[in-house]
Amino acid sequence: MRQNLRVNGARLWSRLERLAEAGALPDGGVNRLALTEADRQGRDLVVGWMRELGLAVTIDAIGNVVGLRRGREDGLPVMMGSHIDTVRTGGRFDGALGVLAGLEIVQTLDDAGVVTRRPLAVAFFTNEEGARFQPDMFGSLVFTGALPLEKALATVGVDGAVAGEELARIGYAGEAPVGRPNVHAYVELHVEQGPTLEAEGCTIGAVEGVQGISWTELTLNGQSNHAGTTPMRMRRDAGYVAAEIASYVRRLARDIGGNQVATVGALTLTPNLVNVVAEKALMTVDLRNTDNERLMEAERRLADFVAKTAKAEGVTVETRSLARFDPVAFSAPLVHRVESIAREFELSVKRLPSGAGHDAQMLAAVCPACMIFVPSAGGVSHDIEEYTAPEHCAAGADVLLRLVTELAA
Amino acid sequence: MRQNLRVNGARLWSRLERLAEAGALPDGGVNRLALTEADRQGRDLVVGWMRELGLAVTIDAIGNVVGLRRGREDGLPVMMGSHIDTVRTGGRFDGALGVLAGLEIVQTLDDAGVVTRRPLAVAFFTNEEGARFQPDMFGSLVFTGALPLEKALATVGVDGAVAGEELARIGYAGEAPVGRPNVHAYVELHVEQGPTLEAEGCTIGAVEGVQGISWTELTLNGQSNHAGTTPMRMRRDAGYVAAEIASYVRRLARDIGGNQVATVGALTLTPNLVNVVAEKALMTVDLRNTDNERLMEAERRLADFVAKTAKAEGVTVETRSLARFDPVAFSAPLVHRVESIAREFELSVKRLPSGAGHDAQMLAAVCPACMIFVPSAGGVSHDIEEYTAPEHCAAGADVLLRLVTELAA
Repeated sequence: MRQNLRVNGARLWSRLERLAEAGALPDGGVNRLALTEADRQGRDLVVGWMRELGLAVTIDAIGNVVGLRRGREDGLPVMMGSHIDTVRTGGRFDGALGVLAGLEIVQTLDDAGVVTRRPLAVAFFTNEEGARFQPDMFGSLVFTGALPLEKALATVGVDGAVAGEELARIGYAGEAPVGRPNVHAYVELHVEQGPTLEAEGCTIGAVEGVQGISWTELTLNGQSNHAGTTPMRMRRDAGYVAAEIASYVRRLARDIGGNQVATVGALTLTPNLVNVVAEKALMTVDLRNTDNERLMEAERRLADFVAKTAKAEGVTVETRSLARFDPVAFSAPLVHRVESIAREFELSVKRLPSGAGHDAQMLAAVCPACMIFVPSAGGVSHDIEEYTAPEHCAAGADVLLRLVTELAA
Repeated sequence: MRQNLRVNGARLWSRLERLAEAGALPDGGVNRLALTEADRQGRDLVVGWMRELGLAVTIDAIGNVVGLRRGREDGLPVMMGSHIDTVRTGGRFDGALGVLAGLEIVQTLDDAGVVTRRPLAVAFFTNEEGARFQPDMFGSLVFTGALPLEKALATVGVDGAVAGEELARIGYAGEAPVGRPNVHAYVELHVEQGPTLEAEGCTIGAVEGVQGISWTELTLNGQSNHAGTTPMRMRRDAGYVAAEIASYVRRLARDIGGNQVATVGALTLTPNLVNVVAEKALMTVDLRNTDNERLMEAERRLADFVAKTAKAEGVTVETRSLARFDPVAFSAPLVHRVESIAREFELSVKRLPSGAGHDAQMLAAVCPACMIFVPSAGGVSHDIEEYTAPEHCAAGADVLLRLVTELAA
């Protein structure tokens, strides 16, 4: 294996630009919601490239697409991949980079006349974003057998469409079986979608794992009262309790420490008038940690605080779990190797967790898996302003190239 | 003067029920927005009663109605009054009680053959609620010369109607001059619209004054970020700053003490999603105190806290004053006399501020004025469930009767 093999960054960038034309928004960015006409256009483009590169394309029953490059021997492939669906006002890098870097790597190996021992695969998974159909990542969930195919196909989207019908309509209801993944290892290159790499001047993120997620919805019921005539001691102010909780959530993140994050992103008061004590507050709490013990500790402390604070104000609480995922740890040897390859390439590198969910966390349940992050300008993602510099895209692809060729050697 | 003279509570209650038919809502309560057809019906009914009682009715240029009962001597009248307009889903007592108690007192004096030395007047003022035309209380503002007539007449309502045109349409654009009030003293009986009297088992409230009001709108601008990928230290979370402020507002009320109340009733986050750090928070702070020095102190402390907390989070603040009224103190001798009459009548009594605005605060600028409160069941007002027991209505009218006959003696 040639140690100095590098991808063609301009060619990768060119494919990123061309894929961004599928579902392009007038002000920049992309709307390529899963299983829409725009998604079909994007899929057709990528599948066309796969075929041009001589990959054997298979499409499974949930629409996941795998392009296989033969190795010198048969056996399980080393898979690269990600997704090409986007949120409604998404960017050009989230997902697309990992898929197109895979194609670029195939082309780089072709140009250099390199055939790996194991096969290589480039995959894209259906509906990673979950912006149209929930749960998110149902493509990789079905691929790995964690979600029944029928359930995913029956999913009704936010627009009332049925996933299975949409899949057939766009021509991507394939025949390859699901739930029996045959993958030697999985590596996903992705934009960070956060500010850490840029802020610390790093080019490569060696992703240690995906944070566990705990989403809780709280409905606080107090009593509506006149803001002028109701003495403070007689209030049952749902808005006040909500504010105390949102303020506590910040202290909680600090007290738990580590990579704990905690957010109150949604808070709605009723009747939401300047001179009326709020009768009701509907709010969410988003807790994430890569350490499940700490995440559970955060959940316990939050529940205690909510109960105590609401009781003191005479406010009742209804609690509903909106989502709960355990953290996922990526393969320690792979994470270490991402880090060491970056150093060999003289790229600044940092270990960090992923705060967002990715298909790689599903693959991690069935094979050694890891992720490579590259910087997101300003930490911005899920936005038409999403941007990752060409040299960062190429650097990430170079690390991916080295890692998969080693794994396939 | 007969010291044991009492009103006819059943007759007062009967008039309250009959007035409630004007603008009656199907589920109870009343919609008698100012200068609507329902308001005209209510006005016609009350003016009819005034004429039946032999009062000399005058209507001024903003539609305020005064019924005058001659005294043994000429001179300035002692005025009782309130309003008969309601909010859109209002109750049967707010405003109506003070006006109809005035009529009941006139009838009680007639029945007893009592003629006071000074004239007595029963008034109702136009658009106290402000639910259709703003500012609220524009009838008493024009009556006392605090607002130019032309400005009030030109007011455009929430439904696009012009106050002056509506006034003419319902036949209540009168000819009596405004801005030169000739009133010896003014006493307004009103329901408390708060929970204090009921909670403390009191029948009569001796109202010391009307709280000053300070309404501030805060627009907090931070940065929208992914709740999973953005470390806590890199956040500029407008929602967190809003929560800190709403939490502080409660401490502020406690620290300022006295009758200070402080409320965050409205709070809206953008984009208001579970997994996105809020970019923007729009919130209001309602501060009220009968002591203007303390109210200004509360305003200063709030401004300091907002500036400090926003700065620490990297969030910018725009501040807009939505309303600012100085407190009004009622005549100390009159407040004292309300209290002592209640005791003489063996009615439990408590001094308290008014948290809501009333016509009496406008009259207080031109003559000695005070208010008598009676309990609101459950503290509920501006609601179809508003209720004050018949015995409480009668007790308030008895205190009013004694006070105005003393003032007119």
